Amino acid sequence: MLNFVNDYSEGAHPQILKRMAETNMEQLPGYGSDKYTASAKQKIREACGCPDADVWLLVGGTQTNQTVIDTITPAYAGVVAATNGHVNVHEAGAIEATGHKVLTVPGHDGKIDAADLERLCADFYADGNHTHMVFPGCVYLSHPTEYGTLYSKAELTAIADVAHKYDMPLFLDGARLGYGLTAEGTDLTLEDIARITDVFYIGGTKVGALFGEAVVFTKHNTPSHFLTQIKQHGALLAKGWLLGLQFDTLFTDGLYTRIAQNANDMAAQIRAALTAKGYLLPHDAPTNQIPVVMDQPTIERLSRDVRMDFMEKYDDTHTVMRICTSWATTQEHTDQLIALL
Amino acid sequence: MLNFVNDYSEGAHPQILKRMAETNMEQLPGYGSDKYTASAKQKIREACGCPDADVWLLVGGTQTNQTVIDTITPAYAGVVAATNGHVNVHEAGAIEATGHKVLTVPGHDGKIDAADLERLCADFYADGNHTHMVFPGCVYLSHPTEYGTLYSKAELTAIADVAHKYDMPLFLDGARLGYGLTAEGTDLTLEDIARITDVFYIGGTKVGALFGEAVVFTKHNTPSHFLTQIKQHGALLAKGWLLGLQFDTLFTDGLYTRIAQNANDMAAQIRAALTAKGYLLPHDAPTNQIPVVMDQPTIERLSRDVRMDFMEKYDDTHTVMRICTSWATTQEHTDQLIALL
Amino acid sequence: MLNFVNDYSEGAHPQILKRMAETNMEQLPGYGSDKYTASAKQKIREACGCPDADVWLLVGGTQTNQTVIDTITPAYAGVVAATNGHVNVHEAGAIEATGHKVLTVPGHDGKIDAADLERLCADFYADGNHTHMVFPGCVYLSHPTEYGTLYSKAELTAIADVAHKYDMPLFLDGARLGYGLTAEGTDLTLEDIARITDVFYIGGTKVGALFGEAVVFTKHNTPSHFLTQIKQHGALLAKGWLLGLQFDTLFTDGLYTRIAQNANDMAAQIRAALTAKGYLLPHDAPTNQIPVVMDQPTIERLSRDVRMDFMEKYDDTHTVMRICTSWATTQEHTDQLIALL
Amino acid sequence: MLNFVNDYSEGAHPQILKRMAETNMEQLPGYGSDKYTASAKQKIREACGCPDADVWLLVGGTQTNQTVIDTITPAYAGVVAATNGHVNVHEAGAIEATGHKVLTVPGHDGKIDAADLERLCADFYADGNHTHMVFPGCVYLSHPTEYGTLYSKAELTAIADVAHKYDMPLFLDGARLGYGLTAEGTDLTLEDIARITDVFYIGGTKVGALFGEAVVFTKHNTPSHFLTQIKQHGALLAKGWLLGLQFDTLFTDGLYTRIAQNANDMAAQIRAALTAKGYLLPHDAPTNQIPVVMDQPTIERLSRDVRMDFMEKYDDTHTVMRICTSWATTQEHTDQLIALL
Repeated sequence: MLNFVNDYSEGAHPQILKRMAETNMEQLPGYGSDKYTASAKQKIREACGCPDADVWLLVGGTQTNQTVIDTITPAYAGVVAATNGHVNVHEAGAIEATGHKVLTVPGHDGKIDAADLERLCADFYADGNHTHMVFPGCVYLSHPTEYGTLYSKAELTAIADVAHKYDMPLFLDGARLGYGLTAEGTDLTLEDIARITDVFYIGGTKVGALFGEAVVFTKHNTPSHFLTQIKQHGALLAKGWLLGLQFDTLFTDGLYTRIAQNANDMAAQIRAALTAKGYLLPHDAPTNQIPVVMDQPTIERLSRDVRMDFMEKYDDTHTVMRICTSWATTQEHTDQLIALL
Repeated sequence: MLNFVNDYSEGAHPQILKRMAETNMEQLPGYGSDKYTASAKQKIREACGCPDADVWLLVGGTQTNQTVIDTITPAYAGVVAATNGHVNVHEAGAIEATGHKVLTVPGHDGKIDAADLERLCADFYADGNHTHMVFPGCVYLSHPTEYGTLYSKAELTAIADVAHKYDMPLFLDGARLGYGLTAEGTDLTLEDIARITDVFYIGGTKVGALFGEAVVFTKHNTPSHFLTQIKQHGALLAKGWLLGLQFDTLFTDGLYTRIAQNANDMAAQIRAALTAKGYLLPHDAPTNQIPVVMDQPTIERLSRDVRMDFMEKYDDTHTVMRICTSWATTQEHTDQLIALL
Repeated sequence: MLNFVNDYSEGAHPQILKRMAETNMEQLPGYGSDKYTASAKQKIREACGCPDADVWLLVGGTQTNQTVIDTITPAYAGVVAATNGHVNVHEAGAIEATGHKVLTVPGHDGKIDAADLERLCADFYADGNHTHMVFPGCVYLSHPTEYGTLYSKAELTAIADVAHKYDMPLFLDGARLGYGLTAEGTDLTLEDIARITDVFYIGGTKVGALFGEAVVFTKHNTPSHFLTQIKQHGALLAKGWLLGLQFDTLFTDGLYTRIAQNANDMAAQIRAALTAKGYLLPHDAPTNQIPVVMDQPTIERLSRDVRMDFMEKYDDTHTVMRICTSWATTQEHTDQLIALL
Repeated sequence: MLNFVNDYSEGAHPQILKRMAETNMEQLPGYGSDKYTASAKQKIREACGCPDADVWLLVGGTQTNQTVIDTITPAYAGVVAATNGHVNVHEAGAIEATGHKVLTVPGHDGKIDAADLERLCADFYADGNHTHMVFPGCVYLSHPTEYGTLYSKAELTAIADVAHKYDMPLFLDGARLGYGLTAEGTDLTLEDIARITDVFYIGGTKVGALFGEAVVFTKHNTPSHFLTQIKQHGALLAKGWLLGLQFDTLFTDGLYTRIAQNANDMAAQIRAALTAKGYLLPHDAPTNQIPVVMDQPTIERLSRDVRMDFMEKYDDTHTVMRICTSWATTQEHTDQLIALL
């Protein structure tokens, strides 16, 4: 059975396991105060071109979104996200559980649009009853999005401008950031993201780590006593060096982007084959997630040999399925998949 | 200046103030354990035709929505409401502050539709990822709605059927219930509402009381230790008899419906005048709230003499304004308003 | 049956009901934006000698404590209170419901001690693990306390000094403030309290109002968008002028302190009688609450004619009962009680 | 530098890393739906002698305490814990962040006592005002405690009896459970714990795993939709098999207890040496944590060569330090430590 269902079906890049084994019996201080975490943070700062960025390593994506959004959003405010945004749909209400409403703008291929954001804010403040409503308090977006699509530098800058105009920090969920940074045609670098956004994270779980998300505050804007707030959210890992080691490895010799590139390369081959065979690709998604429209017979046929993910209904007889490559996808599996399409 | 801006611009029906004055120096036990509260609850039970209903008296609407929804909705679930529903828009995030997401269905003239609710639930449970999402946990609707519209008995029954099919209690916000019960053409009685819904409240603040909302649990479904939960939400009034006295008065000799009828009668005259003068009434709203489309010059002209409320934009040159009568609206003011239209 | 069970057994001072009746049919804007509220706030500012104080009127005590503490305390912090403090024991977990721990120091006659507070804070910051603990984030005390005792100006100043040393606002719960301000021997004026504390409230519910607590922020320290936060806590009264009218009345011609004085006068007579008859008064409580030690036969004998409140066990055969006077206590009832003791 | 500061300074037992490496490129389904997790759960059920136990694997201790306590405790209730309990002191308010108060009973050598628990509950329900207070809703204890002490079977049974008398589930925090199960003199087996408590967890982080805590519900009492609630708390690990693999390894061929035994053996040698050299051991702590009283010169002398943990002040000139062994402590390090004492 071929597995193209997601990008977190394997463990970690072997280099990570190797370093874990090498350091396994070292006695290290807990909660991220170890030397490997310090090294990882320094390498991330350098990769971001942001020497005074403040970096924190958390375990998982929902946990990171919950902790960051709760701590950067005022109590009287909510987070603005795309209707299809992960925090709005697929986090079991983790944001609301911390007391914040998710305010929505339409998703366009999964992306929010600066004009929609401007409209939401302008309408809000123009409303005579707005003090009885939930203030827009921060902006959440994912890059790549849940549809595999990407913001351009101009788009992200426009969103940041609106966010800042209305005194909202811009938070970028980079659970799959590696795949975005290495996508063909993208004009957004890690340095750009560090400069344009106020806080973002570099996803490890889906890009070669066993687990781990590196949160980067780039504007001297870390919430007060953030370690305590991480702990309060149940998100502080005792053996924090496990996170440090992983990110230190990923940010050594360009491993993070190199393995991300593999996923994009495999995806490009699959997209080309899909197009050649007449499948409809409904979004301009240049990263490792490939939304593709299939009719039911095709889904049934392929499902005998390939695991894919259901995304959403397309019409009464078609479905948008997702084929997903990862840092671990092999050329052999890719060839086998293409042969089956 | 004429005031048709809302239905909570005056104090209370004089009979209420009279009884407050008469009983002012009586020494009464606190927190709703007094005889007036007991009497009010009994009269409400009788009016509902539900002898074993459990009645609780709270102070305000947002407080009541927050307390009821939080206590009837499982921790892993949200409340389903119309997009325009009061709990979704105009309660400053009070629902999310208690940890619950507001899940939305479209508002049709402010009302939710059983088919939309069915679709939301069916899609939810059909989604392979639904355990990562917020369960629909209860249904909220207002009657009359924020647009002054009403559910028919068939509509409300259909919604209750879907709610119960998916194991959700149906909660009816009756902040303006009196105006709904006495509207021309309505086929929903208080007994129907008690029978069809699982919990609802009878609004006092907007129908003749200084303040107060009477929550009625009709299915032996009061949340455990509800008094303690009210207290925990900051919603337990020390001098609870003030609520008891008011509802006892309102439910004596039909005062509640009689004064509500006045608002509807005045509104009917105004609607007739508006129609006669060619104004567009965009919703079939037979209660005391009259949404009416006006162009800017008309709004400016009328605003010199009349306070009305802004509802929403209609198009680039028109606005939906709200003219609102109340239990206290006089024929004289109604005539003056009609003359100005 | 004589009633000395608490200070909220009657309605309101008749002057308040009179003004409510007089203004009942005036059409007023909601949510505290009316002229009576503006007037009340101005009079309170003047009474506090704090012309730029920011005053807000809420309905009840637990609601006020919950709203204020939640909005002035950082997310990573708790509120420090006496072990016996109202927020720690008798508010059904309303503080924790908003996410904050109540950190405790011992109560001495119901009061917290600056030295205990200093020790708690010093120990906290000296603890190498304190970033894994709940920071002390604000200080709560009641004046008078739940035991009817009072802080001296020196005591309150010392507490404020510690609070400010550790960057905590000092919040004074004045649910019974009138009885404190007019107690014999007190050296704390309303102006002192406004100067020493960061936020406090002037209790109406227990001092002559139907309901209402006036929160005063004295250091330009109102939480951002406080009206929205009040609303989010379910604590915003639609007919806000009902609060305004009451406080405007209470702060006209010294009514608030005059009626509070009555309670203290009656209590002084009762304390003198209790002492003369050999009862033990376990606390130096010069206000309207009289804790008194009684054996079981005495309690049973008195309970046939007098309602009192249970406070706590004193020893195996004695109980601390509370006799409580109020603004409404008459000389006649006081004489009758004294005759029974 | 010798390291006896805690039991989470090393990575994982090598057998765990080996299996991680072996399975690293297997493609596995996420969120705990994999075969290794299934196998681990089955082995844990068998070890507990509880074939229908429901087992869940979470990442860390505070996260587990927060998720379990929040989901088993009614909204109107708190958790009863020892004053020194981890949830009361060292979790940054994670319990209160989910809305629940921590109610405390005294810790006796870190343990709660059934009689104290009975008194708290009896006093609570006897209090006429208890509906205005936080109900005792579940009982939390740790075994071993934060002091390394253990409950006897009789003690734990007595506590469970009181808990159940007052309708409270009993939750046992077994972050260091292995060290308790293998301590000399304990009469509490894993089967006993499964039978006596309602829910407990088997700690992995401190007993040979990289991370992981196995929560066991033994009375068909798993909270509804628990996976969704785990997700909502940010506690659902994407690559859940990492937890499954670790517990499967630990519960194969008795590895868990075997490595725990090592810590206890080393600790026994150290305790014997301490006693021989006249140190005061203030608690009867037969597990891997050794509280020991030291004067300041001794602390300074030892600190040059040994990392230990500060526990609490003993008196003005003495401190309780903690020497802590682990599954990874070697005989060589133990000998070196003993030579230094």
